[in-house]
Amino acid sequence: MTKELIETAFLDLQDDIIRSLEAADGKGKFRVDRWEHKDGGGGRSCIIEKGNVIEKGGVNFSAVKGKLSEKMSRALEIDAGEFFATGVSIVLHPENPHVPIIHMNIRYFEMDNGEYWFGGGIDLTPHFIVPSQATYFHQGLKNVCDEHDSSFYPRFKTWADNYFYIPHREETRGVGGIFFDRLNEKTTQHTKDELFAFVIAVGRSFAPLYTHFMKDSSSKSWSEHEKKWQLLRRGRYVEFNLVYDRGTKFGLETGGRIESILMSLPQHASWEYNFTPEKESAEAFTLRHLKKDIDWLASDLTEGR
Amino acid sequence: MTKELIETAFLDLQDDIIRSLEAADGKGKFRVDRWEHKDGGGGRSCIIEKGNVIEKGGVNFSAVKGKLSEKMSRALEIDAGEFFATGVSIVLHPENPHVPIIHMNIRYFEMDNGEYWFGGGIDLTPHFIVPSQATYFHQGLKNVCDEHDSSFYPRFKTWADNYFYIPHREETRGVGGIFFDRLNEKTTQHTKDELFAFVIAVGRSFAPLYTHFMKDSSSKSWSEHEKKWQLLRRGRYVEFNLVYDRGTKFGLETGGRIESILMSLPQHASWEYNFTPEKESAEAFTLRHLKKDIDWLASDLTEGR
Repeated sequence: MTKELIETAFLDLQDDIIRSLEAADGKGKFRVDRWEHKDGGGGRSCIIEKGNVIEKGGVNFSAVKGKLSEKMSRALEIDAGEFFATGVSIVLHPENPHVPIIHMNIRYFEMDNGEYWFGGGIDLTPHFIVPSQATYFHQGLKNVCDEHDSSFYPRFKTWADNYFYIPHREETRGVGGIFFDRLNEKTTQHTKDELFAFVIAVGRSFAPLYTHFMKDSSSKSWSEHEKKWQLLRRGRYVEFNLVYDRGTKFGLETGGRIESILMSLPQHASWEYNFTPEKESAEAFTLRHLKKDIDWLASDLTEGR
Repeated sequence: MTKELIETAFLDLQDDIIRSLEAADGKGKFRVDRWEHKDGGGGRSCIIEKGNVIEKGGVNFSAVKGKLSEKMSRALEIDAGEFFATGVSIVLHPENPHVPIIHMNIRYFEMDNGEYWFGGGIDLTPHFIVPSQATYFHQGLKNVCDEHDSSFYPRFKTWADNYFYIPHREETRGVGGIFFDRLNEKTTQHTKDELFAFVIAVGRSFAPLYTHFMKDSSSKSWSEHEKKWQLLRRGRYVEFNLVYDRGTKFGLETGGRIESILMSLPQHASWEYNFTPEKESAEAFTLRHLKKDIDWLASDLTEGR
């Protein structure tokens, strides 16, 4: 499994996801920007704006080479040297507050000394948490994981709870999903080919899962009140991405293309001082469930407020 | 000059600034929240929302004690120990795109081994740069500095250019101002009393400077186009504060009160993929002048586009 083959598979995946999203949106078309990295390689950023369902989002592919700075090699805990990194990254911000925000990333990283790993994840950020939706999402991810290794879903679900967390708010970003990093022959019981197959399967699960939510929820009407809450939740999304997200930090520090990295930010976001939702509201229900270690597959979750 | 006297002077300053801003705004009233820090001390957060001129802003006072974590003591390059920190921090986001965003901070820091310093700064972030406004602002700051030390303005102006900078955008946050840190008997030729007098003078210069801009520009009408640009510029403000601002990082890492720290974020902000203003527009003029090392006191600056 060479890096060229991985790169090609990621590019194909990007194509397929874009086709599926355009079909499900019905109006928005992706704009394609090819760009080059200063040290070698480049990417293809595909951005959608003002669709029927998706207000703003990106499905980005990149494959870049470069020399790891000392700071980055310390942060990654590997020897300095030339690196190669390729990945597909997605963030979609829907217009309708009842459609969740989604993020997906799969990536492959290789050093010139032969060290390599796969990483990635998918997580869902509903503006309003609906347990049946979270269950559907987690069941889908568990199915994908279980086909490759039954230990993956529980490990990677916990990893996501810890990664997609906003310490200063003491809130998870959303209902989580799966997150994994540094997967290789040493850290798992799998060959490189098997790990590649898993990562591609995660990527392939994205479009069916999200287009289901697009179809399921985008016809729901919303109030001004619900729109306001959506903008506040997007503010939290901005806080997570700019303060904590490692992918964003890696991009900013290795001189990545800014507009591609920051495509994860929403069209509009709000902050209101000390906003506290009314008791028994759907907003309060959501806040109570932005917690780690919720088993979304358990049958005892109650719906709504 | 004890820390108790400094704390009291900062509290008085907060009172005076709030009175001046309420008078100039004519509608907005500050809401006062007192809070306690987990390790000792606390603060008084004064927040204004939906005024005539100010859409959202805060004038915060705090005086907190705590034990410096190893991480923080490394970052500050001082020995670990008990610290005391007091300061006044202001960020104001006006509703009208023709009124600039402003930030002011003065602070005093003391370790239990007797080491201390003053820090602070004021910087202006116009959504549309108007050279005569920047000149007025810098002249005001230079006048304050010159009464205390003629070397201060040029040193602190350059310091602000470097501090209020967004590397990933290659843009300054606005037209700069002054920034200074670690001022004490060792780093300056001044006594503690003299430095305190300087810092208080900086604090006292804030209200006359900013209420001048409130009166001068808030009657100007604005277009939807200009509002949109304001929201994009506020997006940059969010990027600076969450990615780079040391005060924000210090607050988040030392367990400060989140709602007080993040009062610096605007009510609404926007991001648009790859937004490029039209040539010869006021927006393009602004972007061209978001650069370090512009001498705003020079007489050869041309107005507008």
